[in-house]
Amino acid sequence: MATITRVGDPADPRVDDYRDLTTADRRPDRPGGRGLVIAEGVVVVRRLIESPYPVRSLLGVPRRLDELTDDLAALPVPAFSTSAETMAEVVGFHLNRGVLAVADRAAPPDVTALLRDARLVAVLEGVGDHENLGALFRNAAALGVDAVLLGPRCSDPLYRRSVRVSMGHVLRVPFAELPGPWPASMALLRAAGLRVAALTPAAGALPLASAGLAGERVALLLGAEGPGLTDEALDAADVRVRIPMAAGVDSLNVATAAAVAFYGLGCA
Amino acid sequence: MATITRVGDPADPRVDDYRDLTTADRRPDRPGGRGLVIAEGVVVVRRLIESPYPVRSLLGVPRRLDELTDDLAALPVPAFSTSAETMAEVVGFHLNRGVLAVADRAAPPDVTALLRDARLVAVLEGVGDHENLGALFRNAAALGVDAVLLGPRCSDPLYRRSVRVSMGHVLRVPFAELPGPWPASMALLRAAGLRVAALTPAAGALPLASAGLAGERVALLLGAEGPGLTDEALDAADVRVRIPMAAGVDSLNVATAAAVAFYGLGCA
Repeated sequence: MATITRVGDPADPRVDDYRDLTTADRRPDRPGGRGLVIAEGVVVVRRLIESPYPVRSLLGVPRRLDELTDDLAALPVPAFSTSAETMAEVVGFHLNRGVLAVADRAAPPDVTALLRDARLVAVLEGVGDHENLGALFRNAAALGVDAVLLGPRCSDPLYRRSVRVSMGHVLRVPFAELPGPWPASMALLRAAGLRVAALTPAAGALPLASAGLAGERVALLLGAEGPGLTDEALDAADVRVRIPMAAGVDSLNVATAAAVAFYGLGCA
Repeated sequence: MATITRVGDPADPRVDDYRDLTTADRRPDRPGGRGLVIAEGVVVVRRLIESPYPVRSLLGVPRRLDELTDDLAALPVPAFSTSAETMAEVVGFHLNRGVLAVADRAAPPDVTALLRDARLVAVLEGVGDHENLGALFRNAAALGVDAVLLGPRCSDPLYRRSVRVSMGHVLRVPFAELPGPWPASMALLRAAGLRVAALTPAAGALPLASAGLAGERVALLLGAEGPGLTDEALDAADVRVRIPMAAGVDSLNVATAAAVAFYGLGCA
């Protein structure tokens, strides 16, 4: 059971994990970054507690910690109770969600094991925007995606803003970097029996619903909004698919396009 | 053809339409609001020029106005050229898109005429978040929605932030308030031959793909993220439909759920 300890002094070293969050939440290879996994708000903190990431502690105002009483019952970590003002001083900005939890990173899952029974996986290339990445994980969780694989130039899904925008679903959907040089690394997808489909707004691509993917296990390649997938990624795919769109409309936001495609592949 | 005039003084009354934008872009019934339609950035300004809204003028840095040369050729309004600094002083904040255009509102389209040939319309209840509303219009434009009808408690789609998030598509997709008391006003939808389908995550709803809507003309009711549709709106619908979702996942963002449903109804 979590022990709840009152913290009144913002300089208290026991809450150092929460200090200056806007730099501390960066990856360890970035200046000031400690690479901890940080959850904000009751809903996301709950998902962190349920996740494989080892929780180190919580920091929150009493009312929010009270809401988490049941979740804390089986969690042998300290929970620090404080005022909103002290919390803001520690963190470096005002947090209106009133509760935070930090966890250590965990070893990424084994890609081969992830792919073995996967029916639908998302493979990302160059998705560098943390909010798009978070939204994409939320949509992946809702629409039954079994895993997300990161190709080159993707952001860190465990960055605080991605965690928040994903509503904590980056903590639930298994993800890992696709090992090996891109795009030859896609061979791993095929070796697992997946058809590699590249989502692109290009006119030459097949409409999603008539691309012959019904009943197939699919690895869906998704590129960044704007540039889209690189030519090398498109060339390496088994098939190019598109969401039929009205003339004169820019492509959809990448997370939205992904949601439509996840749905389309799920119900195809 | 637009006349390009250099403006050096931020107090120049000819650019009053752009003054203190964060209040001036509100509806005329709000304090300080003038209710003008404001487009930001080359892409959205271009959509405003192509829209039915009567453009009053443009304000931009020379480089951005140059990009719009072709669009301005047939547009008999003043274009004010200025520096980024002067623009920021007029507007009240720094605009990194470098060009703005303002237009007057136009009379809303006639709802009966809108519905006559519509195959798919979105009907919104309580969509109060400007960004969700903008994103929803972007998705509606991309996925072939013929019109958006506003039920109670929706935000103003022409508010600057919605215009921007929609990538200017609120200026292209016809919209109007659904007249009459809600939800009895839905009779107008049925009178036009549309089936009224309420999108809800509730377990009792039918999966979108098996709700018998294939080939039907549909009015899709959408509620705000979080509360969703009211009971009275759900009760007034002909059928309740849901997007099949993984257990334990919150509902999707309203604009994303709308995109999935627009796609599902379009390809059903």
